Amino acid sequence: MKGKVYLVGAGPGDPELLTLKALRVLRTAEAVLHDDLVAPEILSLIPPTAQVHDVGKRCGTKKIRQEEINFLMVELAASGKQVVRLKSGDPLVFGRAGEEIESLRRADIPYEIVPGVTSALGAAAAAGIPLTHRRKSSALVFITAHQASDSDALEWTKLVGSGATLVIYMPGQNYAALVRELTSAGLASETPCAVISRATTRYQQVHRTTIAELYRAPRLASPTLLIVGQVVSLADATSVTEEFILPDLAAKGSAAFPAAFFKNFLSPVERQGSDEEPIA
Amino acid sequence: MKGKVYLVGAGPGDPELLTLKALRVLRTAEAVLHDDLVAPEILSLIPPTAQVHDVGKRCGTKKIRQEEINFLMVELAASGKQVVRLKSGDPLVFGRAGEEIESLRRADIPYEIVPGVTSALGAAAAAGIPLTHRRKSSALVFITAHQASDSDALEWTKLVGSGATLVIYMPGQNYAALVRELTSAGLASETPCAVISRATTRYQQVHRTTIAELYRAPRLASPTLLIVGQVVSLADATSVTEEFILPDLAAKGSAAFPAAFFKNFLSPVERQGSDEEPIA
Repeated sequence: MKGKVYLVGAGPGDPELLTLKALRVLRTAEAVLHDDLVAPEILSLIPPTAQVHDVGKRCGTKKIRQEEINFLMVELAASGKQVVRLKSGDPLVFGRAGEEIESLRRADIPYEIVPGVTSALGAAAAAGIPLTHRRKSSALVFITAHQASDSDALEWTKLVGSGATLVIYMPGQNYAALVRELTSAGLASETPCAVISRATTRYQQVHRTTIAELYRAPRLASPTLLIVGQVVSLADATSVTEEFILPDLAAKGSAAFPAAFFKNFLSPVERQGSDEEPIA
Repeated sequence: MKGKVYLVGAGPGDPELLTLKALRVLRTAEAVLHDDLVAPEILSLIPPTAQVHDVGKRCGTKKIRQEEINFLMVELAASGKQVVRLKSGDPLVFGRAGEEIESLRRADIPYEIVPGVTSALGAAAAAGIPLTHRRKSSALVFITAHQASDSDALEWTKLVGSGATLVIYMPGQNYAALVRELTSAGLASETPCAVISRATTRYQQVHRTTIAELYRAPRLASPTLLIVGQVVSLADATSVTEEFILPDLAAKGSAAFPAAFFKNFLSPVERQGSDEEPIA
């Protein structure tokens, strides 16, 4: 019998921003293919018996090609396994899930998409930036910096010049080049912006500036995200952030937390059968 | 001592798409102000001792003005309560959180934002539509239908004509008027689109069509969301959806699931002190 593939969003960084559904699916996985950016606390939730493949691309260096990921995913599911393809953020936003879905359909493998909190929302929450605002911006655009240098310049120009809040995923380190693209697309140089590094993790850093001054912003640790627009002027530099809960629990023994937690998601029959963790 | 306000995203509909952090915060709330669209299963997680205020606006009819919501939220926190402002989707996307944050800052009330899965991501996942795609669309725009009739028409036109995937929140029922706005903004009439009703709930319905044919699409139950762009041609009509877990557990007694679940999130000291649910 064929297995099934779950394309799962792991959220923006903080392990507590995992959804209940993602947790449930991860705890019954027999094989996991994950990106580099998924938090170790989340990876510790994978059953020890599951096959785990790190298929991430770090700093643009591809350890494994997209076609190889697709092939591996299909092969594992075809052999009957329940496979989780775990991506940071949400799987359908800049995650190449489209190509993975096409492979699964061609191979007639059942699949399900489990959405997650995309990085833009995590970063905005952590920096206290309302992405839309009745008086300042009533539209929201997600783009990547790669597009600026693509052939389809018109599209980028229209989006940048629209007055909407822009969230630039993967802005890179060459801020001077990015600013040239943004201003030539019509963005005013006094527009506020914020670089958010490792959003929602304990290493998070926020640097607020303007497009004019962006070129001399510090190069913060990857992954970063750039939010551009009048709403950034509403950012709270002193937004309250609490300590993490999951890492502390994980430190006490990674098995203790997930097993007890997961018990609540089992059907009564399974619960009667055993007090043990179902997979591990 | 002053309390604190948590602006929390409840996700797109399916109670299992709540984050672990949202669940934790909700389970310690002393007062909750929630929108109409939050699922009953999620509301059942609120401790019975908490004050609960439905501050939703249904079908555009305001039961309570935004200023009243802000006032109530500030008053409750000022009296020392831990307050949860629970919004469907993500609080920072079309949620008027910006105005609520401004009120909290003016009153010097500590606050924290807990991001959620925004409706667009839930709808796309449920309908199997990759929102970005290397060959079809490398940008994503969130807008509302209200903007079409606003004074700032240029912005809307640029966004619609950019070639990006468009997600239109609150598209309303007047599809003919919406199509006129979209096509006059430069959108090709053969562009694929999908109306998604009550995404990620058991009542979900997906209707795929094109901009040219949208005017005669069935008027599906609110809330709906319209996804427009070439990526819609990749939608899976037969996307696999599983039964819900949370409602079944809730049916067995709403207290049993949350109490056992929540125990895992308590500090060791609190756990020693009592085996009972901490608030209820």
